[in-house]
Amino acid sequence: MPPRKPIVGVMGPGKTEVRTEPVDKHVDLAMELGKQIASHGWLLLTGGRNLGVMDAACRGAKSAGGTTIGILPGPDALDVSDAVDIPIITGLGSARDNVNALSSSVLVAVGMGPGTAAEVALALKARKPVILLATQPEAEKFFQSLDASLVHVAADVEGAITHVKALLAAKEAAEAEA
Amino acid sequence: MPPRKPIVGVMGPGKTEVRTEPVDKHVDLAMELGKQIASHGWLLLTGGRNLGVMDAACRGAKSAGGTTIGILPGPDALDVSDAVDIPIITGLGSARDNVNALSSSVLVAVGMGPGTAAEVALALKARKPVILLATQPEAEKFFQSLDASLVHVAADVEGAITHVKALLAAKEAAEAEA
Amino acid sequence: MPPRKPIVGVMGPGKTEVRTEPVDKHVDLAMELGKQIASHGWLLLTGGRNLGVMDAACRGAKSAGGTTIGILPGPDALDVSDAVDIPIITGLGSARDNVNALSSSVLVAVGMGPGTAAEVALALKARKPVILLATQPEAEKFFQSLDASLVHVAADVEGAITHVKALLAAKEAAEAEA
Amino acid sequence: MPPRKPIVGVMGPGKTEVRTEPVDKHVDLAMELGKQIASHGWLLLTGGRNLGVMDAACRGAKSAGGTTIGILPGPDALDVSDAVDIPIITGLGSARDNVNALSSSVLVAVGMGPGTAAEVALALKARKPVILLATQPEAEKFFQSLDASLVHVAADVEGAITHVKALLAAKEAAEAEA
Repeated sequence: MPPRKPIVGVMGPGKTEVRTEPVDKHVDLAMELGKQIASHGWLLLTGGRNLGVMDAACRGAKSAGGTTIGILPGPDALDVSDAVDIPIITGLGSARDNVNALSSSVLVAVGMGPGTAAEVALALKARKPVILLATQPEAEKFFQSLDASLVHVAADVEGAITHVKALLAAKEAAEAEA
Repeated sequence: MPPRKPIVGVMGPGKTEVRTEPVDKHVDLAMELGKQIASHGWLLLTGGRNLGVMDAACRGAKSAGGTTIGILPGPDALDVSDAVDIPIITGLGSARDNVNALSSSVLVAVGMGPGTAAEVALALKARKPVILLATQPEAEKFFQSLDASLVHVAADVEGAITHVKALLAAKEAAEAEA
Repeated sequence: MPPRKPIVGVMGPGKTEVRTEPVDKHVDLAMELGKQIASHGWLLLTGGRNLGVMDAACRGAKSAGGTTIGILPGPDALDVSDAVDIPIITGLGSARDNVNALSSSVLVAVGMGPGTAAEVALALKARKPVILLATQPEAEKFFQSLDASLVHVAADVEGAITHVKALLAAKEAAEAEA
Repeated sequence: MPPRKPIVGVMGPGKTEVRTEPVDKHVDLAMELGKQIASHGWLLLTGGRNLGVMDAACRGAKSAGGTTIGILPGPDALDVSDAVDIPIITGLGSARDNVNALSSSVLVAVGMGPGTAAEVALALKARKPVILLATQPEAEKFFQSLDASLVHVAADVEGAITHVKALLAAKEAAEAEA
């Protein structure tokens, strides 16, 4: 079998979660990030709903011919983004945040709210690397206090992609050695 | 966006579950079924592990150029089948059986054990159609006693595919009307 | 610490699941069963909602001074039975059926529907003993075809209690030996 | 039926999670907190394992005659604390963190690690009040940036109990009005 494509998770607030910044900036960043992820040949995984960062990242990835996976919280696909190719219907509510964390080789948080914070924390608990893009300084300081070795901060989409590339390469090297 | 490809689930015993019949028959059927599912342009979803019916169905689908999704029970991908393109790592243990049921538009059970029985029952609970292929008569009678309108019995792979085709067409027609 | 009280699970249809028999018979049996479970000093675990077998078993247990645990599927306690002392709010939907199965030392099914079938199957998958009370013959034959050593059939509440007592004693003996 | 006893959750690092402070301080605080929770007639809910804050809080509660609920991540009770009266075996891995958050009326975090951070974030996502006790300043600033109205900081056990009392009273008043 040919090697499996890496899965990169993009997490971030839907509209209802954003408390500290206008959502538009995150939506724009997520769209560009999704596009870049697809251009690099990686699969995109998001929370799959038709709003906010999840939706924007998927739209970006589809615009560049990528494949998108959406891990939905509800028991049906009523609120799935049109830009999700593969809807996984979990029915788990917020417990699905852990499926997002475990299924992504690297997680990028674009903006921050309670749901995104849960996903980042669950990723760290599972020893997965996380990249914070456009999150408040409080988030950066907090997550780095939990585990500085796993938490990376990116200033822009290009910086986030550079981190993803390096982290995937490190993972591949570690697996080749094992 | 172009229409999403339907997801067909194939469930069945890993080695440890089979109690009533030799596993080889189910493995052969699952491989052929996976192949046919891919040939029809549908996505294949299984439990994702590297054994029994899950593995065989994925291998069959890959041999026909299909795309395979594996919903894994464990917290990592150590036991994923080589023939899974998209591993979803749930960490949920057997609670992932409900993710299998909800994420499949139609579920085909090839053989029967406790895990497969749980997946069929959870599919019926969610009002999803199920096709039983090569299951013991006790299973057919029981599941039809639960919900005759949702439970179909197929004598062979061709019969199962005929059922899948009709059920997906009915689903599409119902959605177009809604 | 004094020894922990055993947890006995009682599962069975809410109204919407019953397809083959009038619900009243099961409600009466569940109420008596809950009462007997409490009288023996065991904790009662159910799906926790305010309908059908779950509700009746809890009411029975409370009438005899017992303690009741309800494992709720939804994200809040809006539909909890008044007779549940300890509501566990899972938000997992039907994936909570596996929490019911794992948390019970012995599971008694009173009547049968898709949800109850899932709970019985998940219990067998986890190697837990199950007692079938007032289920259709198709259910008895099917589950015994899956694992005859774990599936017991009771003709009435007294028979079910006799089975529970023997199974709990066997579990305790096995644990003492280990 | 008499009114149900409120459930207060106490979350905090097991040994493996502590990165910023010695664990002993948290263990001592958790034990005293558990004792106070039991003295007020509330039920205690923790992650249920036999280590760190979970274990200590349960021991404290039992020393004051309380009742303790443990929501275990694994598929069996092998690592349950001796001081848990009611082990709920979820088999969900870290997805059980959301069961902890949803099932508690108020959540107290004693110390902080990735798992505790996930539980606090999931509680906020579900609009549940949280009290931070002996957490690093970065944690306080971050969670208050997410939702200042739900996040309370306590300097000591007495302060935490005062918050719990006020939050439970407010909840009861809101429910009486609804």
